[in-house]
Amino acid sequence: VTAPRMAAVLGLGLIGGSIARGLAAKGVSVAGFDVDPDCANDALQCGVLGSVLDPTLSGLENAEWVIIAVPVTSALELLGRVSRLATQATLITDTCSTKRSIDAEARRLGLASRFVGSHPMTGSEKSGWAASRADLFEGATTYLCAASDSHGAEALEAAENLWSLLGSRTQRITAFNHDRKAAATSHLPHVLSTTLAMTLEKLGIGPEELGPGGRDMVRIAKGDEVLWKTILLDNADLVAEAAETLFAELMLFRTALAERDAGFVQNQLARGREWSSRSR
Amino acid sequence: VTAPRMAAVLGLGLIGGSIARGLAAKGVSVAGFDVDPDCANDALQCGVLGSVLDPTLSGLENAEWVIIAVPVTSALELLGRVSRLATQATLITDTCSTKRSIDAEARRLGLASRFVGSHPMTGSEKSGWAASRADLFEGATTYLCAASDSHGAEALEAAENLWSLLGSRTQRITAFNHDRKAAATSHLPHVLSTTLAMTLEKLGIGPEELGPGGRDMVRIAKGDEVLWKTILLDNADLVAEAAETLFAELMLFRTALAERDAGFVQNQLARGREWSSRSR
Repeated sequence: VTAPRMAAVLGLGLIGGSIARGLAAKGVSVAGFDVDPDCANDALQCGVLGSVLDPTLSGLENAEWVIIAVPVTSALELLGRVSRLATQATLITDTCSTKRSIDAEARRLGLASRFVGSHPMTGSEKSGWAASRADLFEGATTYLCAASDSHGAEALEAAENLWSLLGSRTQRITAFNHDRKAAATSHLPHVLSTTLAMTLEKLGIGPEELGPGGRDMVRIAKGDEVLWKTILLDNADLVAEAAETLFAELMLFRTALAERDAGFVQNQLARGREWSSRSR
Repeated sequence: VTAPRMAAVLGLGLIGGSIARGLAAKGVSVAGFDVDPDCANDALQCGVLGSVLDPTLSGLENAEWVIIAVPVTSALELLGRVSRLATQATLITDTCSTKRSIDAEARRLGLASRFVGSHPMTGSEKSGWAASRADLFEGATTYLCAASDSHGAEALEAAENLWSLLGSRTQRITAFNHDRKAAATSHLPHVLSTTLAMTLEKLGIGPEELGPGGRDMVRIAKGDEVLWKTILLDNADLVAEAAETLFAELMLFRTALAERDAGFVQNQLARGREWSSRSR
């Protein structure tokens, strides 16, 4: 695995902070930026960053890899500036949970041969620099969405090197297929967890009244609402598509309970158990 | 805490097996029964049981405490036999996840002064004697539903002793209030977890494609379908009541996503986060 001399990480939250820590641990000089100067200074003082970028991002021209680790709406804005400034970069990537919009923006900016979208599957209800750690990506899968099938071989190889350095497996996927899958596996579960929390609040129940199973079901609702709002809105059409399938299943379950249809209820529970228990 | 000389545990699954182990560890002689004679023999051979009861339950007349730890439909059948046989028992209790039906049956059988329903909040996707352990109830809350407010003081004290011996806190509640609360905190989450698993199956997604958050959301769907069928059908009216609130919240969320209503989406996410993050 070839490591670059210098990489830039824009955004030092849970994901960006963990990338900076992981790369620094592998001897890469990391230049970092965060809207919160305290985070960047803390990262500098603890030796994770070699340098702090100012808001003009001057110095970005020296970075071989540029990693944008901010919520998708900010990432879309930032990508235009990065495309102008990062003249030496062989890889520009992001870590957003949705991939269609940033992929389209990279193509529009003429970055197809240098941009590869990344999505490490390490979601957590924790967030921020304080929660970051060098081993966050160890053993996790990272999806890679190359913006060009024909011209991005070098960038794709660099993206694979980046995630390999961080201990993550990579898997290629198109941006559309990624977003459809993420809608079902991550975004819809988040909507459900939030909706369950809201329902329990309306019913006058406190979280301390939950058993272990209920607690698991509302854990991801603890995620940052600004981040999750941008994710859900960016992928709203495909979240809605996945939700329709869920609504249909939920209505069937409701009818079966109302009619005390023991056979249907047991069959649904058995299929859910079988699916959930499939080896991983 | 006063321990009896002898207790009987009917059903040696996760809950009954753990009660038998916990009581044996406190020096109580435990007589046990299970429809699977291998479980009962295993419990006898490893010293958890002092004796195995045969299917006629002969010997039950010597038990001071009788604990029925089988799914609710079987518990309702068993309670009639127990009421005839357990002539010396000062406490008859069950461990079912729903409390109205068994409470009504106990009253119908004239057991009000000796019956107290129990529900330890230790649900797990694991089940069976093999998963049982003496410390399962340590630190957990157990709800107690006394069948009589005026004539059951001795039985209630015995039930509090039982759960105290097993390391569990107790909390009194009426059977109706218990079932309404359990519908929201446990049964509805189970329906959601199962429905999410079914939805993902329909969308062609495997459990290995889930991140940590998605995995949490389908964990409880791994529960035994026969047990959960009996729970959901026994409490169907109150599960449906809780589900109506959830459906209404879900529809609002769907509309907000369709209309790209960022304010509403963020507000729901923030309220869900705040509720879920309340200290426990």
